Amino acid sequence: MSEERFMDKIIEVCLRRGFVNPTAEIYGGAGGFYDYGPLGTLMRQKIIDLWRQSFVLDEDNIFEVAGSVLLPEAVFKASGHLDSFEDPLVQCEQCNSMFKADTIIKDATSQIAEGLSLDELDKIISKNNISCPNCKGTLSKTREFNLMFKTEIGPTGGINGYLRPETAQNIFINFKRLVNFMRNKLPFGIAQMGSSFRNEISPRNFLIRGREFEQMEIEMFYDHDKENEHPRFHEVADIEINVVTREMQEKGWDEPLKVTTEAAVEEKLIPNQYLAYYLAMETEMLQAMGVPEDSFWFRHMQDNEAPHYSAGNFDLEADLSIGHMEIIGNALRTDYDLQKHAKATNSNFEIAMPDGKKVVPHVCEPSLGVGRIFYTVLEKCFREDNRGWTWFQFPPVVAPLEVAVFPLMKKDGLAELAQEIHQELKDAGYLSFYDESGKIGKRYARADEIGIPYCVTVDYDSLKEYSVTIRDRDTMKQIKLPLEDLEIALGELMDGEADFDEFKEFEQIEK
Amino acid sequence: MSEERFMDKIIEVCLRRGFVNPTAEIYGGAGGFYDYGPLGTLMRQKIIDLWRQSFVLDEDNIFEVAGSVLLPEAVFKASGHLDSFEDPLVQCEQCNSMFKADTIIKDATSQIAEGLSLDELDKIISKNNISCPNCKGTLSKTREFNLMFKTEIGPTGGINGYLRPETAQNIFINFKRLVNFMRNKLPFGIAQMGSSFRNEISPRNFLIRGREFEQMEIEMFYDHDKENEHPRFHEVADIEINVVTREMQEKGWDEPLKVTTEAAVEEKLIPNQYLAYYLAMETEMLQAMGVPEDSFWFRHMQDNEAPHYSAGNFDLEADLSIGHMEIIGNALRTDYDLQKHAKATNSNFEIAMPDGKKVVPHVCEPSLGVGRIFYTVLEKCFREDNRGWTWFQFPPVVAPLEVAVFPLMKKDGLAELAQEIHQELKDAGYLSFYDESGKIGKRYARADEIGIPYCVTVDYDSLKEYSVTIRDRDTMKQIKLPLEDLEIALGELMDGEADFDEFKEFEQIEK
Repeated sequence: MSEERFMDKIIEVCLRRGFVNPTAEIYGGAGGFYDYGPLGTLMRQKIIDLWRQSFVLDEDNIFEVAGSVLLPEAVFKASGHLDSFEDPLVQCEQCNSMFKADTIIKDATSQIAEGLSLDELDKIISKNNISCPNCKGTLSKTREFNLMFKTEIGPTGGINGYLRPETAQNIFINFKRLVNFMRNKLPFGIAQMGSSFRNEISPRNFLIRGREFEQMEIEMFYDHDKENEHPRFHEVADIEINVVTREMQEKGWDEPLKVTTEAAVEEKLIPNQYLAYYLAMETEMLQAMGVPEDSFWFRHMQDNEAPHYSAGNFDLEADLSIGHMEIIGNALRTDYDLQKHAKATNSNFEIAMPDGKKVVPHVCEPSLGVGRIFYTVLEKCFREDNRGWTWFQFPPVVAPLEVAVFPLMKKDGLAELAQEIHQELKDAGYLSFYDESGKIGKRYARADEIGIPYCVTVDYDSLKEYSVTIRDRDTMKQIKLPLEDLEIALGELMDGEADFDEFKEFEQIEK
Repeated sequence: MSEERFMDKIIEVCLRRGFVNPTAEIYGGAGGFYDYGPLGTLMRQKIIDLWRQSFVLDEDNIFEVAGSVLLPEAVFKASGHLDSFEDPLVQCEQCNSMFKADTIIKDATSQIAEGLSLDELDKIISKNNISCPNCKGTLSKTREFNLMFKTEIGPTGGINGYLRPETAQNIFINFKRLVNFMRNKLPFGIAQMGSSFRNEISPRNFLIRGREFEQMEIEMFYDHDKENEHPRFHEVADIEINVVTREMQEKGWDEPLKVTTEAAVEEKLIPNQYLAYYLAMETEMLQAMGVPEDSFWFRHMQDNEAPHYSAGNFDLEADLSIGHMEIIGNALRTDYDLQKHAKATNSNFEIAMPDGKKVVPHVCEPSLGVGRIFYTVLEKCFREDNRGWTWFQFPPVVAPLEVAVFPLMKKDGLAELAQEIHQELKDAGYLSFYDESGKIGKRYARADEIGIPYCVTVDYDSLKEYSVTIRDRDTMKQIKLPLEDLEIALGELMDGEADFDEFKEFEQIEK
């Protein structure tokens, strides 16, 4: 399977260069847990910062909160997770391995079995003679397995607590306070970035399906009667998104439908403006991160695939080496959660509108998986030449390090000047890395491998005439320019305001 | 108790204005869990960003990582937490309430009983006739209670997992990969910001002792033989820190000793430069956040107070309304953790030094509690006038919102111009808030209450002559200045580069 090997190549770089590694690997790990290393953490933070800036801070009616990860049982009893947040589990009667029933069916028959009843799953397994993928043993009957991690809060005799399986519930249970903070005016959004936990039966595919993961979510509350009056929809109306409708899924499809968000709402391909707004935002964000626009689309999920609270889900699916993978979930949660918590706590979650109408708002939820986006960016930016050398062609906006500064040699004051330049770039806010060890070609290769967009080299000319050389990772072109212009030139290159060929006034060196 | 009431005043503002509220309060909460609301999250993020910039990004040999919160049992078996991370628990035989034995002793007798054996605790309780604070019932014998939250990873028959009680262990167990990333060169530091969990017997004091909390930690690895060769120590040598030595604690003390870090190391008041470096950094950070320098100090913990791994702890204690509280822990962890994990996994954690010596590095760990710092800033910035009005005198660097923009009236185009100014300030990176509802005096009071340093008012002069008024929260002084100078003036005011009286060229209005 050459596809598996492609992911393995990326994992190999991740392990060796400090992006990501399995948690507790010296103890054999625990399956589905990953630690971000030094470079991974820098890049992950950039992804979070990009989301925070465009999805939260740039908006006037959206605020971020940060709630507890561990929540008391009552919350999940009301939300339905205690009863419904389950996966169908089958176990091998010979080797005791456990599997998610619909996954094992999909692997064996390519049939999508998500959301089917236990009976239906058992029938498919039996009809297709599906046996244990590990030992070919007979599989047990399917049973439900709740995916929440359970613990006990307080000393003996305490209450049950669960690690949240999604960040959203913190927002719903704080609804009264949040509405008050927003002065009872719809629409408004509450964002949250944080860890969620799902005790997956068989975690797989590296960062794509882990047991602990981070989400960037927004619960956007709006009056359902005004679902097509999003105040900023006009700003995204012309943005083209890729859509896979239910009809296309029934008939079979080769390419997603490319359509503007405005047309998508008008033609009812997307249920409303609130949802369409986020599909546009996500499209723009992924493209800015180096994920090509033709490599992802929004698929209208089938009813039996969507979560228990959903009135319409549009997953952002990416075309990855391991198949079509859900990277972002977009759900219309209606007023399901608010009504559940209102009932369970005897609360009133109605908001009085200016015209006197009372409304329990509906919710549109874009839920972005940090690890999934992280992996998608890694895969889509991965490059390999015919010598087997690899590098990440990260756009500067997600590159874990933005510039590397190299003295050609350590001696004759080159190292000192290079250190000084490195420090000045850091002070100016660049993620700069200083490296003086090894041959210069080796240093370029090491920098390319981790996707540093620009290398700045300090050589003897630098001492004589205060010049430095900037090398572009992708073209390997070099330009020499006065030291005093470095900071501005780098800024323009990183922002895409200039490219190498525009620096005509400077001496250009083709490699 | 007037002291309790002071904390309650702050909690009241926190609840009402969107800083912090108990988790799942509509379900009665779970004790020791808090959610940060919209303003709290902005301020918390600023605290994290300040730490990240000065403790991590400004350093060349420190990188941040982000590890899993849920870890397999083997990690904590080796680290000693499974055996030793316990608190002494006593239970009331009448009402079944549970208490931490040393806390109940301290409350009843002021005696510090941390670290005493179960027998010793029982003796003190019996000798002082300490009974249940709730119902005066008889207390049980003391027993050990492990503070880690336990869960099970994987479907039935999985392995035990624990929510980490400190972020540090992720770093120790990834040591080999991290050393490799740092190219085997000492000293280097690995930072981590994230959630930790302790199942406290009786959580108390709001954000000071919760069951879920966030830490900003660094594990600084160095050669023990070179513990006084910190490469940047000269930069902090002259910074004065407040110290409470063990000798002072024995003799009784009124005021901490003020001493430069250089003198503190020379006189062996602080064990080494690595520790002293962080005491200086923390002193500067807290002061920048508005915590007065005479309100906190570093106390050399007694041996029986320090954690099981410590060879010297210096807690940053703040003088809060609820007493002297540990806000930051600074520990010399020696090579304890690395040796434990090396032994448990049969690994070799030695680093070969340039001179051929092999070293398992020692560790200096500054561990900053996000919530504790957050609360300390709230309390130290809280102001109340004789009318009972309250406000937070936050320095701009921690203020959740930096500027509020008000149109004097909504009509005549004032609202539109104010909106435009608000948008421009946001685009320039300010945390700006737009408010057009209610009388202007009311809007100032609302902004003051949540600590917005500057309000910008748009009035009829703004339309006529393109001027705006800036109002200073702390002096209530106002200056009128040309709109085109607003952005720069605000920047200078916020950075402390200018104060109100310096804007001589502009018309000044005393309120």
